[in-house]
Amino acid sequence: MLIHVVNPNTTESFTRKIEVAAHAAASHNTEVFATQPDMGPVSIEGFYDEVFAMPGMLVRIIEAEKKNVSGHVIACFDDTGLDAARMAATAPVVGIGEAAFHAASLIAYKFSVVTTLSRSIPVIEHNLMRYGLASRCARVRAAEVPVLSLEDPNSPARARISQEIEVAKSQDGCEAIVLGCAGMADLAHSLSEEHGLPVIDGVSAAIGLLEMLVRSNLRTSKIGAYSKPLGKKYTGIFVSFAPHNN
Amino acid sequence: MLIHVVNPNTTESFTRKIEVAAHAAASHNTEVFATQPDMGPVSIEGFYDEVFAMPGMLVRIIEAEKKNVSGHVIACFDDTGLDAARMAATAPVVGIGEAAFHAASLIAYKFSVVTTLSRSIPVIEHNLMRYGLASRCARVRAAEVPVLSLEDPNSPARARISQEIEVAKSQDGCEAIVLGCAGMADLAHSLSEEHGLPVIDGVSAAIGLLEMLVRSNLRTSKIGAYSKPLGKKYTGIFVSFAPHNN
Amino acid sequence: MLIHVVNPNTTESFTRKIEVAAHAAASHNTEVFATQPDMGPVSIEGFYDEVFAMPGMLVRIIEAEKKNVSGHVIACFDDTGLDAARMAATAPVVGIGEAAFHAASLIAYKFSVVTTLSRSIPVIEHNLMRYGLASRCARVRAAEVPVLSLEDPNSPARARISQEIEVAKSQDGCEAIVLGCAGMADLAHSLSEEHGLPVIDGVSAAIGLLEMLVRSNLRTSKIGAYSKPLGKKYTGIFVSFAPHNN
Amino acid sequence: MLIHVVNPNTTESFTRKIEVAAHAAASHNTEVFATQPDMGPVSIEGFYDEVFAMPGMLVRIIEAEKKNVSGHVIACFDDTGLDAARMAATAPVVGIGEAAFHAASLIAYKFSVVTTLSRSIPVIEHNLMRYGLASRCARVRAAEVPVLSLEDPNSPARARISQEIEVAKSQDGCEAIVLGCAGMADLAHSLSEEHGLPVIDGVSAAIGLLEMLVRSNLRTSKIGAYSKPLGKKYTGIFVSFAPHNN
Amino acid sequence: MLIHVVNPNTTESFTRKIEVAAHAAASHNTEVFATQPDMGPVSIEGFYDEVFAMPGMLVRIIEAEKKNVSGHVIACFDDTGLDAARMAATAPVVGIGEAAFHAASLIAYKFSVVTTLSRSIPVIEHNLMRYGLASRCARVRAAEVPVLSLEDPNSPARARISQEIEVAKSQDGCEAIVLGCAGMADLAHSLSEEHGLPVIDGVSAAIGLLEMLVRSNLRTSKIGAYSKPLGKKYTGIFVSFAPHNN
Amino acid sequence: MLIHVVNPNTTESFTRKIEVAAHAAASHNTEVFATQPDMGPVSIEGFYDEVFAMPGMLVRIIEAEKKNVSGHVIACFDDTGLDAARMAATAPVVGIGEAAFHAASLIAYKFSVVTTLSRSIPVIEHNLMRYGLASRCARVRAAEVPVLSLEDPNSPARARISQEIEVAKSQDGCEAIVLGCAGMADLAHSLSEEHGLPVIDGVSAAIGLLEMLVRSNLRTSKIGAYSKPLGKKYTGIFVSFAPHNN
Repeated sequence: MLIHVVNPNTTESFTRKIEVAAHAAASHNTEVFATQPDMGPVSIEGFYDEVFAMPGMLVRIIEAEKKNVSGHVIACFDDTGLDAARMAATAPVVGIGEAAFHAASLIAYKFSVVTTLSRSIPVIEHNLMRYGLASRCARVRAAEVPVLSLEDPNSPARARISQEIEVAKSQDGCEAIVLGCAGMADLAHSLSEEHGLPVIDGVSAAIGLLEMLVRSNLRTSKIGAYSKPLGKKYTGIFVSFAPHNN
Repeated sequence: MLIHVVNPNTTESFTRKIEVAAHAAASHNTEVFATQPDMGPVSIEGFYDEVFAMPGMLVRIIEAEKKNVSGHVIACFDDTGLDAARMAATAPVVGIGEAAFHAASLIAYKFSVVTTLSRSIPVIEHNLMRYGLASRCARVRAAEVPVLSLEDPNSPARARISQEIEVAKSQDGCEAIVLGCAGMADLAHSLSEEHGLPVIDGVSAAIGLLEMLVRSNLRTSKIGAYSKPLGKKYTGIFVSFAPHNN
Repeated sequence: MLIHVVNPNTTESFTRKIEVAAHAAASHNTEVFATQPDMGPVSIEGFYDEVFAMPGMLVRIIEAEKKNVSGHVIACFDDTGLDAARMAATAPVVGIGEAAFHAASLIAYKFSVVTTLSRSIPVIEHNLMRYGLASRCARVRAAEVPVLSLEDPNSPARARISQEIEVAKSQDGCEAIVLGCAGMADLAHSLSEEHGLPVIDGVSAAIGLLEMLVRSNLRTSKIGAYSKPLGKKYTGIFVSFAPHNN
Repeated sequence: MLIHVVNPNTTESFTRKIEVAAHAAASHNTEVFATQPDMGPVSIEGFYDEVFAMPGMLVRIIEAEKKNVSGHVIACFDDTGLDAARMAATAPVVGIGEAAFHAASLIAYKFSVVTTLSRSIPVIEHNLMRYGLASRCARVRAAEVPVLSLEDPNSPARARISQEIEVAKSQDGCEAIVLGCAGMADLAHSLSEEHGLPVIDGVSAAIGLLEMLVRSNLRTSKIGAYSKPLGKKYTGIFVSFAPHNN
Repeated sequence: MLIHVVNPNTTESFTRKIEVAAHAAASHNTEVFATQPDMGPVSIEGFYDEVFAMPGMLVRIIEAEKKNVSGHVIACFDDTGLDAARMAATAPVVGIGEAAFHAASLIAYKFSVVTTLSRSIPVIEHNLMRYGLASRCARVRAAEVPVLSLEDPNSPARARISQEIEVAKSQDGCEAIVLGCAGMADLAHSLSEEHGLPVIDGVSAAIGLLEMLVRSNLRTSKIGAYSKPLGKKYTGIFVSFAPHNN
Repeated sequence: MLIHVVNPNTTESFTRKIEVAAHAAASHNTEVFATQPDMGPVSIEGFYDEVFAMPGMLVRIIEAEKKNVSGHVIACFDDTGLDAARMAATAPVVGIGEAAFHAASLIAYKFSVVTTLSRSIPVIEHNLMRYGLASRCARVRAAEVPVLSLEDPNSPARARISQEIEVAKSQDGCEAIVLGCAGMADLAHSLSEEHGLPVIDGVSAAIGLLEMLVRSNLRTSKIGAYSKPLGKKYTGIFVSFAPHNN
């Protein structure tokens, strides 16, 4: 099967790191390719950036649909544009945020999330509430590291994340840690070793969930929330994004 | 005070109807002006349309900020882009969906919502959950009328909405009805007369809530979820939307 | 429009302070007058005092109805007797507790409440649960200042409240503060300046919400929970409070 | 032990019926006496009546405390004034509404409530929410019989209640029925026989819960919500109700 | 009436201690006898032990049914096997965990639980969620004392429990303490004296609740979740446990 | 990788059907083997049967651990013994009930469950509540077909299930159907074709989730709820099940 992973920000090194994690998690016969939009923010930190990440990401989803991919992964922990992507695509779509929450729920009674900046906490809490998994999450924490500092090997980002995991372990009653950013995908293994509890990266979890859906012949339901977008006119720079019904 | 009302879809007649409702609800010394984006969908029906309505709407928010408006109303019942607008603006921002829910909560124990198409029900239910008011809503119903049929005086839209209110009254145990689309603003009064219970239009409610915030000297908190967007590079057609921090 | 503000306790200086705050928040054409019961407790601190504040407050509501007021504000943060007042009145009724919660929800993702004594915390938590807004409240805190100490300029009340706001800011992840007593109405502005986040006084918020309801032609629904009281006999000292149906 | 049962309305025949049910449920060595206020409404139907039932009921609670009773039962299904009574009394206090919900939770996965008039539904739903037992209640239903019709042997009240139980059984997925009015205490046994499922009367349940508390040496906690009322001045007709701290 | 108390673990001294507490709480005419299984773990600490405690406990329930007992108490705080016992028995069944939660809800606004080991916290939290009473519980805490250390007068168990109650009082805002193990039944009185708030032992509460159900003529509903087990074949060592329908 | 699937009932034909579904869902390099206990009920219908299915199932889990399996699937929709199995095993464990709920959450906004008998509804509702996914489930329905009728090709079981799906589609607002019994694994595909919406079988979903966990190097956390059982003595027929700590 062929899986499309889209990084919704426009930072190329991010896309490469995500692609490596996705490859590593895929099964033998699964091919993965990663894309990124050519318009939008270089990183997503809060609701405002999300707005400008979504259109470019949907372009990539629609292009990949034409290649008959088996499924799409949205590789931003905020699950940016996930609902719209489910409407636009025929193949199933999984966000790495939801993937990590589902995986954590299968191996721990309670988990805590460690994300980048505290302004992302409400986005993540909203998602947990919508998915229904808020009761499984002990607490969403921020290590207060900017997203792009994860690309800089000299930054204190990893050290700060490790400290926050230590605090979560001692204060939250959590049994597993979810890493709250796609850019942390390469840290999961060593942090798990260091802290002696499962540390979950959403990229690998999402690849596995997509494979599960595909092997179970499951696709997004098209009879309700995720029905095909209705044909209508779009104007201005978005004229070509208008859905057609035929 | 000066209030900016933005209609997030690109249909001019919609904007005019909203402006009329906003004027009617404003107090003596309050001026209102309505805008619409020059890019995006002609109507918003589901998650996909929302993505392409948000950037153009934020343009209007940012332009209006430069005119020192006292506040902004987002005149789509889905409260499209509300969180991002709160980050982008210094003045307070109110969505007509949330406005209607808050107003209904003050005059009824339980309310039902009657919206356009059933594909909008999940969007509205998500919002009710996030705002915390889901327990006050008996049920979200769809009259199954396309948004733009509300602009056509010969369509059966009003009749269908009235029928759905009748069903809500007899089945939901609701005490008030919230109209789930900005395009229904002109129907609230006559439907209330017809059915003998309060029928709430979010446009007037939002104007009143904004006036309340302004007279109470309240603006969006800037210390958490709605902090000013962080300065960073945006690429492609969104290059000029990048926030600057200085 | 003419708005009636009732202070449910019998302390005259409290009523005057509330009236000043109400006037300041009203729009140009709105007249406000404040009353207080002639029977009941001098301050309301917990469930027991509430019982004896309600009958006298309802007397004032019923008297004001005869003056054709546009609406009523109940100026006790516990929203004492709010449901009964909604049954008794034709005009809409807003409590300052609920008003503050609704206002806070429009400008912050999460708010904390700072009230007087800890025995009032359960009353407030019950209300938050009933209104549906509990999920928006990070925590209800008590500054442990008796209500009437707010009337004494030499008391440490303001200092204690300010300290508790500081604790809330650092521990609760809240973005705004709701002041949990009508007697704190005059402190909101200076505390907001001091702490750099919105501080909400329910009296101004309630005036604004009432104006919103009136301009939107919305009154309490009379088909369910808030139907007119049924005609029946009352005995003893309450004989004259019996509702009549005709 | 000696148990005080207070009927918060002023209808004598109601008090007698309740006393009979209380006696029947008490254990061998337990004495029961029933009282009613000498001021207030002849029946309690909605929030407004509640306000005027509470002061007279608290008089009875305070008088009974002086007789060193082991506990108090508030025999109105709305649990009128329960929180205030817990502050006023040293002995434990149980409401018949909460008693019925707790009893039902011990013998059924889900129960439905059948009360008198639909205007009492919100009162009951609020209580279920506050007690935490809302998730155990399938639905609160009204038989639409006025409270005092239960005193009239020729009224269709029993027939209507039986019909509503039938509807609840077939539609709610409930396994037990809670009778939602003290005046239905004499119907529980025959309705249970008729419908083949447990039918719960709150009066007997409350007597049993009080005996349980007394035998377990449990009294209302006095360190928080139910602390002794603070000493302060009350004015007007309530001057003698003021609590004293000494 | 005759009440059967089953201790689901196989430690005889535990059974005797429970029987003493049960006798003390029973009313004059009530006889109590206590049993324990002859297979299974010597103490129950976590989900695994529960599995092997349940079959032997059900044997005792079924044997006691043949003696026409009026009801059964399951004397493990995890309410081990409660749902299955309700199916197996005709007489009502009460668990000591649920009993303690219900009792606490009648005398305090919020309670905290102090149990033995932290591995039991999820079991207890699950139960609180299922019973619906999670919102009444401030926090479930573990004193980190193994269950059987409660049988050793020289162990530091009582001291550790007392310390944890102190922490709960100062940090949780709780007004009562629930002791989270049947083996703590003898400590409730002295801990209550020591800490000045109600301390609840589930054994006495359960006896009282059973007496309440019996005097109210209430038995487990047999029309849904707790219907009689369906007749079918069981194999292996459980062959004789198969239910028969006739 | 090697996956162990345990059917907790003792019906061999059930085990074979489950094994076929598991094989079909597994990826190329994954081997699957299915077992069943040699003691316990021939089918699991309600809480009582569960008790006697768990010990035998845990035997199979412990035996499979010795073969160094990569993970275990518990193939009963009630997720019988899941928590205990997570304590007993080092490899991850997935129940087919939870698996189906997680899968459904990824492809539909709301799903309904169609199970065998209505006595299983509470078991399933409890699980949904504990997993956190109750808000995603529109309704749990029973087709009222006994579990073993699914093994009889001449029974009306499939027809009844299909009818109930039709009712769910028209009444629940659901977008996908979860089949609520392992014995329905072979029906998912044809029912999905027939009704035009995703129909989810938990066996395939569980295989996919286990592969996801294994490829992501995730195992059950051992620091809290699912810690290794404590060493202690077990008595009677369970003597050999006692955990040892060394």
